[in-house]
Order: sequence, then C-alpha cells, then structure tokens
Amino acid sequence: MAEARADFPGLLTPAGKPWHYLDTAATAQKPQAVIDAVTRALGRDYATVHRGVYARSAEMTLAYEAARRRVAAFIGGREDEVVFTRGATEAINLVAATWGEANIGAGDRILLSQLEHHSNIVPWQMLAARKGAHIDVCPLTADGRIDLDAAAAMLTPAHKLVALAHVSNVLGGVLDIARAAVLAHGVGAKLLVDGCQAVARIGVDVAALDCDFYAFSAHKLYGPTGIGALWAKADILNQMPPYQGGGAMIDKVSFAGTTYAPAPQRFEAGTPAIVEAVGFAAACDYVDAIGLSAIHAHESALVAQLRDALGAMNDVRLFGPADSAGIVSFMLDGVHPHDLGTILDEEDVAIRAGHHCAQPLMEHLGVPATARASFGLYSSQDDIAALVRGIERTRRIFG
Amino acid sequence: MAEARADFPGLLTPAGKPWHYLDTAATAQKPQAVIDAVTRALGRDYATVHRGVYARSAEMTLAYEAARRRVAAFIGGREDEVVFTRGATEAINLVAATWGEANIGAGDRILLSQLEHHSNIVPWQMLAARKGAHIDVCPLTADGRIDLDAAAAMLTPAHKLVALAHVSNVLGGVLDIARAAVLAHGVGAKLLVDGCQAVARIGVDVAALDCDFYAFSAHKLYGPTGIGALWAKADILNQMPPYQGGGAMIDKVSFAGTTYAPAPQRFEAGTPAIVEAVGFAAACDYVDAIGLSAIHAHESALVAQLRDALGAMNDVRLFGPADSAGIVSFMLDGVHPHDLGTILDEEDVAIRAGHHCAQPLMEHLGVPATARASFGLYSSQDDIAALVRGIERTRRIFG
Repeated sequence: MAEARADFPGLLTPAGKPWHYLDTAATAQKPQAVIDAVTRALGRDYATVHRGVYARSAEMTLAYEAARRRVAAFIGGREDEVVFTRGATEAINLVAATWGEANIGAGDRILLSQLEHHSNIVPWQMLAARKGAHIDVCPLTADGRIDLDAAAAMLTPAHKLVALAHVSNVLGGVLDIARAAVLAHGVGAKLLVDGCQAVARIGVDVAALDCDFYAFSAHKLYGPTGIGALWAKADILNQMPPYQGGGAMIDKVSFAGTTYAPAPQRFEAGTPAIVEAVGFAAACDYVDAIGLSAIHAHESALVAQLRDALGAMNDVRLFGPADSAGIVSFMLDGVHPHDLGTILDEEDVAIRAGHHCAQPLMEHLGVPATARASFGLYSSQDDIAALVRGIERTRRIFG
Repeated sequence: MAEARADFPGLLTPAGKPWHYLDTAATAQKPQAVIDAVTRALGRDYATVHRGVYARSAEMTLAYEAARRRVAAFIGGREDEVVFTRGATEAINLVAATWGEANIGAGDRILLSQLEHHSNIVPWQMLAARKGAHIDVCPLTADGRIDLDAAAAMLTPAHKLVALAHVSNVLGGVLDIARAAVLAHGVGAKLLVDGCQAVARIGVDVAALDCDFYAFSAHKLYGPTGIGALWAKADILNQMPPYQGGGAMIDKVSFAGTTYAPAPQRFEAGTPAIVEAVGFAAACDYVDAIGLSAIHAHESALVAQLRDALGAMNDVRLFGPADSAGIVSFMLDGVHPHDLGTILDEEDVAIRAGHHCAQPLMEHLGVPATARASFGLYSSQDDIAALVRGIERTRRIFG
C-alpha cells in the first residue's frame, strides 16, 4: 500500500527523508484525513454537545453520536452498545469497576492468559484483591498462542470472566475468539476481548464472534489519542451500575437522591472527548476505505518477509507464530534490544524495545525484553530492508 | 480584547459573519495557536511517550512532561502534583475513587454547597452511598454566593472533605478559597476545589490558596477536549492508592503480585492523551500571554454592562452577584429559556439555556432553567448588543 504512505505526514524525518516507522503496535501514525477532521472540529465546527440550544451545538451533537454509530459499525456492533472511553485501558477498567463490582464475588475466578498486556491484568488483580476472587493464567502453546485446549480444561463454574487479547501485542498471534466465547459461555462466564491490536489488523465482527465485551483505542487505529471504545452486549451494558458521576450521565440530581441516564450515556460523565470522537470516526472511514482484508494481507506478507530475513540470521531468536498479524518480536544475540533500538534510530528505523507492558510474557519467554517490529498499512519492503541493514550494522558495531 | 478575536476560527458563522458566542462557560473556542499545536503533534511530531527508544518518542515524552510542568505552573503548582485526566469530572471522580475510598468511612461527613455542578455532587453521593457517609449542603447568600459563615457553623470534626466550586458555572460568584481552606483545615477536613470556571477567568495560585485538590479541564481554558488536570498536594497524592490499572502506572507486574509507580504516573494508566496534553500547554501559553488579570478585568466590564442592560428591562430577572466572573444568568418573563435561546440562535447569538448541570441550584432558585450568557477573552460589546437586540425581538414575538 505504498500509495497510502503519502497520506501520513508523520512518516517523514525532520530532514524530509522517509521514516522507517516500525512501532505501529505502540501507536499508529495519522492520515491527513484524520488530522483535517480534528482541525475542523477544533476550529470552525467547534461547540459542545448534548446541551446547546443553538444550531452548531446541535450539529456537533449529531456528529458525536454519528461517531458512536460509526465506531460501533466498524466492529459490527450497535450504537447503543458503544461507550467512549479515554482508551482501551479505561474501557477494561470501566468493566472491572462496574460489571466486575456487581458480578465478581469472593471465591469467584477470572481466567487471563500468560501473554496479556498489563492493561488486561492489573485491573483484574485490583478487582480480585477487593473481592477475594482468584486469577487463573492460561498457558501458551509452543509457538506463543493462547492455548484454548488448556483453557477448556481449566474453566469451571466458578469462573465468571475470561479476559483475553484478540491479537498479542508482542507475538502477534490471533486468538480464535468464537471458540473462546463458546468455552467461556459453557461455564457461564463472560468473555472480554482486548482488541487493541486486532481492530487495525483484522476485520472484527463482535456479533459473529459472540464475545461479551470488546475494548480498543483509537490511537492504534490511525485515530486521535485520548479516546477509545468499550463495546458490550446491550443486555449486559444496560444492567451495569454507573461508572463516574457527573454531568450528562444523570437523569435527575438532587441531594435527596440522584437517578441515572440509560446506557451508554450513563457511562460518559462530563464533557466528552468531542473532537477526538469526530477524529475516531474519520479513522474508521479511512481504514474501511482501504479495507481490513487488504491491510491484513499486506501486513501478513511483510511479516513473512521479515521472518524469512531474520530466520536466515543465526544470531537472531524469533518469537511468536509464523502467521502473526503484523507483529514480529526478536532478539539479536549479545545485544540488548535497547541498544539495537538506539542504533536503528540513527538509521531512521523506529522499533520498540522493552517488555511491551507484558512482563509476565517476558518471564515466560525467559527474556527481560524483546525487540519488536510492527507494521501498519503504510509499511513497506523498504522499511524491512532498512531494518535488516540496521541489524547488520549493529552486529558489526557489537561484533 | 477585540484584537484576539481573529485568533479564533470558531468565532465565524458558516456565512463568514461574526458569531456572538456567549457560551464560553460550557466550552471555550480555540485559538489557532492551540489548533496548530494539535495539528503538529498529530502529524510530523507524532509518537508515543515513555517507552520509545527512538528520538521522536523521546522528544514527545519531553513535550508531554513539559506540558505537565506548564499546566502545573499555570495554577502555581509543582509538576509532580499534576495528574492528567479526561477532564474535571474525571479528576473529581479520581479523588473519590482513591483518596475517598481510603479516607471516608461510615459516619463521616462531606460538605458541598447548593450551587455545585453535578460533577461535584454525584461522585460524592456515590462515595457516601458506598461508605455510609453523609453529605451536608452549605446554603447560599441572598446574592447567590456560597455562605462561608454558614459553612463555619456547619463544620464538625466528622467532616473529612469540603468540596466547592471556585466560580459558580451558573451565577459566576467567586469563592474565597483561602478562607474555605482555613475553615476546612480547622476541623481536619481536606478542601477540594472545582476550578473549571475559575482557571480561564481569574488567576489561580493553589499554593497561596492552600487548598488540597484542584480540578479543571482544558476545553474550558481554550484548550482541547479530552483532557483535564487534577492538582493535589504532593503528600496527599503520594499516599493515594492507585486508580485505574494498566500500562505506565506500574512498577512491576507479575501474577504473583504487582507493584505501582510513584505519583503522578501511578494515576495515568495506559497511553495518555498525548496530543491533548501538548494542546493544553499551548492553551496555557496563550492565556498567560494575554494575562488573566486583563482577561478578568475585560470580562468584569462586560458583566457590568450586560447586567446594566438587563437590569433596565422590567421583565428580566437577574441571578447571581454583581461582581460575577464572566457569567450572567437571567430569565425573561413568560419566555422559556430554551425558546429564547432558539430565537437568539437565528440572530447568530449563542447562549445556554437549561439547568446547567446544577439542578439543586435550580431548585433553590425556584426555576426549572435559566438563560446564561458567559464571556470569554474574545467577547465584546458587540456580542452584548446582539444579545440585547435578540431579547427585544423575542419579546416582540412572544408579546
């Protein structure tokens, strides 16, 4: 998708040269269409939502609710099932603070996996500590996928929640959500899916997958920072108690007693991230216009090419499955990933090095950190060639 | 400050005529400098923070932390005392969910006032319900200020928190925070200040005021949506338990047990509102360059002029104190504020009509709603003239 590259002003170095940005799993660069939508919403279209008696506020309210509809449609959901949050982390915390508070009790169990991002571990640890509940950890297969056979054997009627990543942010493996949902529902548990890495890489249809909660952020989907979404089945969302208190989430406030608005408004206290919602919708438009099957095919081809190149180096250790969705983690023998990242930066190649907010996975892999190259729709063979050149130079420096 | 008007692309109608925007208390329009900062941060400067091993991510991290320093300095605080939140509503909810959970118990009391915004009522009602605590309501003086003499008589050692608006979003009265702090501290309570309306209207120095918590949003301060700040005294913030769980707020995560980062990082789970923080800092720069004493003088002169004009109409009821900070609430006899707002909109005059997220205050005033005109640094006598013309036209339509 070389032609898309020109849409992204962030993909140039200060000197105006191509920037080999291989950190899209951390955050995606933004197409001009998203930047323009944000600029317009902050400028000539700017107004508050939900309360103005003047036309521009009514129009911004329509734009905000259209954004909710757009984001819901992007993952196959309904607009009354989408709550705007600060990001995926807040979406998961919202579920823990509302559904979790109401439905997880002493002795209940929550099943996570060894490869979860901290944002899909720590909220559940905090909830479990408050409630006297227990966390179980599903192991991984040899190639670094969540082992659903093991999950099937672990699940019991004490499990109230299964919370898993759709795509691993370190290894790129894609989970079979439909099967995970059948397993969870088989013991009466709900399934929460951390969709951060999936939404920008593979087509998601929450209705077909039959999960109960789906969390993702806009900034990894080529959209603005400061916004994300929680999708939840309407019957679950409608029964969840309120989250934060404030304006817009109430029905009537008095010191004698306050009543709350229906979902999803009940979960959106205060002036929302108006401009960001408009930009989020523009990002969905942009990605859908290219098409996620084309993006997935493009990224998969790049993954295969990079794994081939790295696999041919006998001092490189490769992690994760061969059919990773756009993410390749590796280590270069004798070189700390941070040092590799620093040298690559001199060549205008940006990778991530570290624990990737997945320390339990690092423990499982037996490494303190990995180097990670992750692709976006704008990535190309040139980026891979630059990375390979940079690795060769690093080897010479350390060798 | 007529010359500032040209800095704001939002202050034109679609036809390119001046828009008489008198709803700045709901949200402020954005100067081009803020829009440009956002555009640049979303485009050529874009990268994630806190984890990149490449230069652009390191630079964005510096910009993000410089924004924290900038926002802290704007209110006279220290950078290690500022937590970025989605907005003021979340800032207050954060205090309730962390400090409140740890420090409010059964039988404890919280003092609010009759004029608080829902965002400074509902979080405390939810906390009080969870904990078996009680809420007391400080009455108002005849001209609509929080009656601190009454507060002095109401406070007891059972009070653990006093939470008050610095400037009323409906009436514009300015609270004597320094005295409120002395009263609260005199019984061992903490003082939380809702500074939403104050920060854009009067100079704030949290150190001199000696409050304990100060909450405000960027979008009312000419900055982006989707971000706000909680300031808290360092010794209080350092003792508060974590808020949301996730990346960036941890020290070390393992399934055996997780430890947390120091404040303020402990309270910022997940990828933060990076671009919004940069825009927030640009807004502080813009406002400080004009100067809050000049802005306050300008808005006070407009308040006096509008109150004179409305006071001369014998079918208008005026609310609030004469020295309101930029906000004038009123009613036109026999005309619902919504109808007034709709007719004014036809004249390119935007006011707010409704309960202003302050239903207990409406109950106190004995009205279901008020019309509210609120000024910003870009407001002018032309806006007042247009409003007065619109009121006269409305009177003719309804008369």
